[in-house]
Amino acid sequence: MAIRSTLVKGTRDYSAEEIYRRNHILSVVQSVYALYGFEPLETPAIESWSTLAEKYGEEGEQLMFHILKSGDFLKNISLEGEDYAKIKPIISDKGLRYDLTIPLVRYIAMHRHQLCFPFKRYQIQTVWRADRPQRGRYREFLQCDIDIVGSEACLCEAEILKIIYDVLTKLQLRNFHIKINHRGILSAIVSKAAQSTKEIQFCTIIDKLAKIGWEQVVLALKQEGFAAEIISLLDGLVHFKGSDEQLLEQLQTAVGSIDKGAMALNLLTQTLTQAHHLGLPAEICHIDPTLARGLAYYTGMVMEVMVADSSLGSLGGGGRYDQLGACFGLDALSGVGFSFGINRLYAIMEEQQLFQSTAGYTTEILLVNMETTATKRLLQMANQLRIHGLSTELYPQCIKLQKQLAYAHKKKIPFVILLGEQELATDSYTLKNMQTGLQMNYNWPDLMQVLQKTLRA
Amino acid sequence: MAIRSTLVKGTRDYSAEEIYRRNHILSVVQSVYALYGFEPLETPAIESWSTLAEKYGEEGEQLMFHILKSGDFLKNISLEGEDYAKIKPIISDKGLRYDLTIPLVRYIAMHRHQLCFPFKRYQIQTVWRADRPQRGRYREFLQCDIDIVGSEACLCEAEILKIIYDVLTKLQLRNFHIKINHRGILSAIVSKAAQSTKEIQFCTIIDKLAKIGWEQVVLALKQEGFAAEIISLLDGLVHFKGSDEQLLEQLQTAVGSIDKGAMALNLLTQTLTQAHHLGLPAEICHIDPTLARGLAYYTGMVMEVMVADSSLGSLGGGGRYDQLGACFGLDALSGVGFSFGINRLYAIMEEQQLFQSTAGYTTEILLVNMETTATKRLLQMANQLRIHGLSTELYPQCIKLQKQLAYAHKKKIPFVILLGEQELATDSYTLKNMQTGLQMNYNWPDLMQVLQKTLRA
Repeated sequence: MAIRSTLVKGTRDYSAEEIYRRNHILSVVQSVYALYGFEPLETPAIESWSTLAEKYGEEGEQLMFHILKSGDFLKNISLEGEDYAKIKPIISDKGLRYDLTIPLVRYIAMHRHQLCFPFKRYQIQTVWRADRPQRGRYREFLQCDIDIVGSEACLCEAEILKIIYDVLTKLQLRNFHIKINHRGILSAIVSKAAQSTKEIQFCTIIDKLAKIGWEQVVLALKQEGFAAEIISLLDGLVHFKGSDEQLLEQLQTAVGSIDKGAMALNLLTQTLTQAHHLGLPAEICHIDPTLARGLAYYTGMVMEVMVADSSLGSLGGGGRYDQLGACFGLDALSGVGFSFGINRLYAIMEEQQLFQSTAGYTTEILLVNMETTATKRLLQMANQLRIHGLSTELYPQCIKLQKQLAYAHKKKIPFVILLGEQELATDSYTLKNMQTGLQMNYNWPDLMQVLQKTLRA
Repeated sequence: MAIRSTLVKGTRDYSAEEIYRRNHILSVVQSVYALYGFEPLETPAIESWSTLAEKYGEEGEQLMFHILKSGDFLKNISLEGEDYAKIKPIISDKGLRYDLTIPLVRYIAMHRHQLCFPFKRYQIQTVWRADRPQRGRYREFLQCDIDIVGSEACLCEAEILKIIYDVLTKLQLRNFHIKINHRGILSAIVSKAAQSTKEIQFCTIIDKLAKIGWEQVVLALKQEGFAAEIISLLDGLVHFKGSDEQLLEQLQTAVGSIDKGAMALNLLTQTLTQAHHLGLPAEICHIDPTLARGLAYYTGMVMEVMVADSSLGSLGGGGRYDQLGACFGLDALSGVGFSFGINRLYAIMEEQQLFQSTAGYTTEILLVNMETTATKRLLQMANQLRIHGLSTELYPQCIKLQKQLAYAHKKKIPFVILLGEQELATDSYTLKNMQTGLQMNYNWPDLMQVLQKTLRA
């Protein structure tokens, strides 16, 4: 009876090879974070609705996975005629983690008296979003966040820029660059036509520039009633060609006379200078005044990592937030964070063929099981080989040699040891190199020496 | 405004120290598994209801976390008067992973034509159960499974016993032992009074022996109508005192004349012999004829790891299963698996104080931020130190020295570098040892040498 067994839409299994490759990425990420004094934090997958509610906007809440209450909670409750929005709180009081930022703020709120500020943590965990699945985008995926909370110094931003560079350089990624901007610049632009109240709509529309193109952005801005002055100013910035210095001059002319514009420009320049002192090459990071980052909670610098010649979009993004703590009763909690999309990074590393040299653990030696009289010796051999750190399998049952060799072949096991009638009679061992097909006969000490030399060279 | 922010009952956050410690356990587990030729597998947290349904018994299904469907799925549906069991499939079609075994079988069913059998995989992932939380038991916890699927040879059982021993020995755990039994023995016992149809109830009751005691077990067996002959036979085994050989003799007398009893005894003896040849010390593993392991799917050997003098119960358990594949349309899929409870293992390692020497990454050097004129030099120094692999933090803003030293103290950073007015004037650096309080002045090359020597000795 064949029963269909399927995965839930937008989820996936990870094979050994994929896990080895992903772990290679994660170990580089973690080692860089540790070098900068960040420590790990992990929070539960399940958070209460009071933690998750009203943090991600209406769109975010629609994408959240809600968990049904346990037990027969519907007893004596009539749901007739109620719509979803009203029923949800009756049947669900918790949901799956949607990002790693809100859990961080919840954690800080709970432990603020014990924590050491500025609090520097990284967090590598799965998040869940009921988004439309597409290439490189799943409903269950790893996020890899780094945050510095409790300092307003732009040195934090500078360090994060350098960390991004260090991680990607250690992974040998090519053609990446970082775009930065400051919300104050966008804010100054809208304030030019006294439209500051619509700043978030403005950012949301500009955020779509790469996806929908300039003409659609103009249309959307006009529809939302943004002034021609703003659109024309933006036009000049979107189509700007010139050096970084010339761009800064143009921005100075555009928003330098407005307080928050001047402050933003000053902070961006200072951040870049500090990042350069930290060793960030100048060509890696540029100001892009049209970078908005959709998330409403950013209040300062925003950043995004792009890879040229890739269709995969951004590798990650982040920025400074000042108000996040408020929803947990914390005031004046300024932080800056960045999040790598590990699935995207993985996909781009595949595109750039950066995984060849990353071997995982695989079995190095297969002991073929040919004679039931040899079992005791085979078990002892397996133990000896493992004691010497050689990854060893003993084929569990006595079946045809060809089948056991096929197993070694399929699992890419480089060496096979044969202990047949002849070997048992002469107290010797036949070593077969699965790549060359060559077979050699050894006594036990010589065999151990050959294996250790070959496999641990 | 203070807003209560809490964790969902039965869930917890993990601090850096807890993560370092847990990762120490996991890295030992993974290295041993790899040495035996096991490869990792990861499956999604969310599985469809068709995968989860009818696999864990009624009790299991009640403990499962169900996920609400997305979107306004209640439109035009009346739930009036319906009870929970009828409403659930309308509002939920997926749930959170309850164990790692069913996802493994689902994975094998989907990939059986590409996989290499015997399929040896390990899986370390979170599972969720809406159980009553208690000490060392959470609703969200890590499981760490190892399975060999597609071989009936008892060498698989022997290898798993040795793997358990290797893992716990490498973790330096004391006073642990492994209990093994074979379902065939319990099966033979019930068949003695022609009560084979009630084998699962029998196992379920015996499984509670450690929790409820012998007298309550007798009561429960009588209530279920088990024959006096069975209870008396069991009594002899529960209260048996003697050597392993004497126990085997007694079992031989008790069930050796029944086919499945004889086969079970034979397999247990053979497994133990093979495990000993693999290097398992004889005193580690004993037959316990009253070991049942509650899970209905075990059909052969069962095993459980216990720690003497600990109130924490079993460290993990497992056994052989033959019928699991059937529910996914696979026949003749015999496997044997074992699962470590990582939270329990962690708790027992704490009890036995085995974590002292397990240091994690922590910042090694704090650069104190004292003079705004020194910022450039501090940034360059931080970069240099990190290039040399020294984990370094630069305090992000210029505040009182005492506050920065308090930060280093609280984070247990061993060295602090001061670059004040005097140091800037003499192009030198003051190194403060935070443990001794000693301060020494160095030029840059000497400072680097001292730090590398001290921190990388």
